[in-house]
Amino acid sequence: MTTDLMPNRYRPGETALPEREAALIARRDAVLGASYRLQYRTPVHVVRGEGMWLYDPDGRAYLDFYNNVPSLGHCHPEITAAMADQAARISANTRYLEPRLVDYAERLVATFPKAMDRVVFTCTGSESNDLALRIARHVSGHEGVIVSSYAYHGTSAAVAEVSPNLGDAVRLSPSVRMIDLPGPAGVPAGEAQAHFTAQVTAAIHDLDRRGIGVAALLFDSIFSSDGVWIDPPGFIAGGVDAVRTAGGLVIADEVQPGFGRTGAHMWGFERHGIVPDLATLGKPMGNGFPIGAVVGRRDPMESFGQTARYSNTFAGNTVGIAAADAVLTVLQRDDIPGQATRIGARLRDGIGALANRHEMLRAVRQAGLFIGVDIGTSDSPAQQRRRMALDVVNGMRDEGVLISTTGANEDTLKIRPPLVCQPDHVDRFIETLDRVLGRVSNER
Amino acid sequence: MTTDLMPNRYRPGETALPEREAALIARRDAVLGASYRLQYRTPVHVVRGEGMWLYDPDGRAYLDFYNNVPSLGHCHPEITAAMADQAARISANTRYLEPRLVDYAERLVATFPKAMDRVVFTCTGSESNDLALRIARHVSGHEGVIVSSYAYHGTSAAVAEVSPNLGDAVRLSPSVRMIDLPGPAGVPAGEAQAHFTAQVTAAIHDLDRRGIGVAALLFDSIFSSDGVWIDPPGFIAGGVDAVRTAGGLVIADEVQPGFGRTGAHMWGFERHGIVPDLATLGKPMGNGFPIGAVVGRRDPMESFGQTARYSNTFAGNTVGIAAADAVLTVLQRDDIPGQATRIGARLRDGIGALANRHEMLRAVRQAGLFIGVDIGTSDSPAQQRRRMALDVVNGMRDEGVLISTTGANEDTLKIRPPLVCQPDHVDRFIETLDRVLGRVSNER
Repeated sequence: MTTDLMPNRYRPGETALPEREAALIARRDAVLGASYRLQYRTPVHVVRGEGMWLYDPDGRAYLDFYNNVPSLGHCHPEITAAMADQAARISANTRYLEPRLVDYAERLVATFPKAMDRVVFTCTGSESNDLALRIARHVSGHEGVIVSSYAYHGTSAAVAEVSPNLGDAVRLSPSVRMIDLPGPAGVPAGEAQAHFTAQVTAAIHDLDRRGIGVAALLFDSIFSSDGVWIDPPGFIAGGVDAVRTAGGLVIADEVQPGFGRTGAHMWGFERHGIVPDLATLGKPMGNGFPIGAVVGRRDPMESFGQTARYSNTFAGNTVGIAAADAVLTVLQRDDIPGQATRIGARLRDGIGALANRHEMLRAVRQAGLFIGVDIGTSDSPAQQRRRMALDVVNGMRDEGVLISTTGANEDTLKIRPPLVCQPDHVDRFIETLDRVLGRVSNER
Repeated sequence: MTTDLMPNRYRPGETALPEREAALIARRDAVLGASYRLQYRTPVHVVRGEGMWLYDPDGRAYLDFYNNVPSLGHCHPEITAAMADQAARISANTRYLEPRLVDYAERLVATFPKAMDRVVFTCTGSESNDLALRIARHVSGHEGVIVSSYAYHGTSAAVAEVSPNLGDAVRLSPSVRMIDLPGPAGVPAGEAQAHFTAQVTAAIHDLDRRGIGVAALLFDSIFSSDGVWIDPPGFIAGGVDAVRTAGGLVIADEVQPGFGRTGAHMWGFERHGIVPDLATLGKPMGNGFPIGAVVGRRDPMESFGQTARYSNTFAGNTVGIAAADAVLTVLQRDDIPGQATRIGARLRDGIGALANRHEMLRAVRQAGLFIGVDIGTSDSPAQQRRRMALDVVNGMRDEGVLISTTGANEDTLKIRPPLVCQPDHVDRFIETLDRVLGRVSNER
């Protein structure tokens, strides 16, 4: 793991900034807690957003190939109108009987496999994962959680301590076990499932020997913080079975892959042909409005809910429900997952074609509109690969295109445009990437 | 503690409901997780809100003397307009440089004592308390948390396990210590501070002996879930000092008392003449938009933030900031805390006057527009007092006025209208309470 946990960030003193930005950053630093970071060597100053674009105060446009929260595009007029209309009518909480909550819950659950027919709303993906862990521990009577080596599942104390991606300064739980993924370990596709199953089985065995037991396998089906490891579809199936056999629950963290991001399927776990016990939702659910959910099988949801109290003041409020309902309408009406499949393929092919000219494009992994591109030849040292990836990301930013990095070594480009991305946006992205790769390559 | 953790709720089969509501509840139960509860013996069906009022589908009006989230009234036009305007412009996250975030952070921090000059945003009060505990444990190197006997601090795993109010089904942390408050223990006002200090000191001693150490004293300054214990001002001061001496942090949970609720002061801790290390905000901050914050002294905030990563996707998004900014503008411009002081006194006096005619009004405790009224004479059994309190709350609901219960025995009326409550609302509330008390008294 890199010692710098967010390499793509602004470091005071390293970059000369215009007076206006320097002054705003000074004010920001004087009032915000020290945990805040600004992205890019030169931070992006934004005051307006529309569709695929962000704008700075001078009207300079940035093509957004990074933000997966405004999945239908920045300031989508139907979503903002739905929100504004509802806010003027009522924002009820779930202790009152209110019909929109029920309507949306039914629509949402209908997008899941039949066995997953219950929902509890939250406000954030972190709250969703936190609640899912509470349910899994309550139902299984165990404490152990199995995650991938560089997993990130959120910010609350309980999920931060099962998020190795947060680095040494955030203490890990004694009950978490990390498993190596077949992809980054260099395991061939044909052996990927056996490798994953063996890792999970060993983790269960260790948890059992220590009397901790396995409460849950918690995973993001595209393993985005590990560097976007997507294939082969189904490689997680044996591990899923092993956890169930040991009495644990299977939790699909759909905060990033969910709502059509991976194309074709609405939910990331569908690509792997499995049905989890619980799925956790967040980011794009309200196109920016803070709303999340846990959707799951009836048994664990009932077993938890009938004894333990869970009441989340803001969760399920009518304004958030109205935003989420409008998002689901647009997603289904405009076949956004289908679009993500088509545009994602164009983007993958475009990047693939660049690989012929730029040897530093080592590998491309893609599902729908989530793409990871490894930077640096395989014989270049880790630090150099990371440096080159950062040079590419910041070169793109300076040319007005926003992406970032991911992976254990942060040398994988993380590309995930809003799902309303069109062919001309892809073409512009590819042209810019081509130019930036050429420049970074020449500067070496 | 009562075995029924939410006595004021709908129980299927106990109340005959109209067809429309019965059908909606059946659909709701078939899709929502079992942790959901509907308030009142006959749930309130709402489809519209405005100021102090909620409306059902037939236009029947309910006077809201309970909801402390829409503190400026339901669907306040200035707040909803600010939200809608901002949503159409941009909703940036905090990794971009965006000026409204900085402007609001400065305004918010300016309402705190000078020493508390840093803020981190969250989405909910639970996330605020969860983060505050992470900071306190990181900075102190200790694990122990001291709370009141019936404290409730939120829904995440880490705060639920320090919330004894959640009852036996939610496991308490081995590192939490509960202290008895002087009020419910019947300690005279003159001895309240000594009693509180002794309780905190004993808890620290026990935590130290077990090698756990004290990380934090976490308290809601009006102790609302314990039954609203407000006086005498300053009774917590000795306990606050003791925790600091032992190396722990002092966390004021301002989710309920904050933003002028207790009248005169903006923050509940000010009534007690102390300055905490961290204050946690939530509920009324955005008048319904999910936004919260931790405001604190520079040292602990820096010590945590410089090493540990904390990044909350939705927190500090520009739409939430716009809502919160508009709330602060209205609060300050219209002197809402001053209004809460004046209207709160009228409400207290009105209830006090009823005590002359209704012996079941045992005690009234009030700060601003947060009022607790103990029901039942002191010689009536606990179960009878609880039953009477529930009869009053549900009698009020049937007459179109919304309140609920609180306290260890749930026999305290919890009254906390939106802060925009006017004298005629108070008069109507008092008339209704008078009538309902008479009826409940006759039915005994």
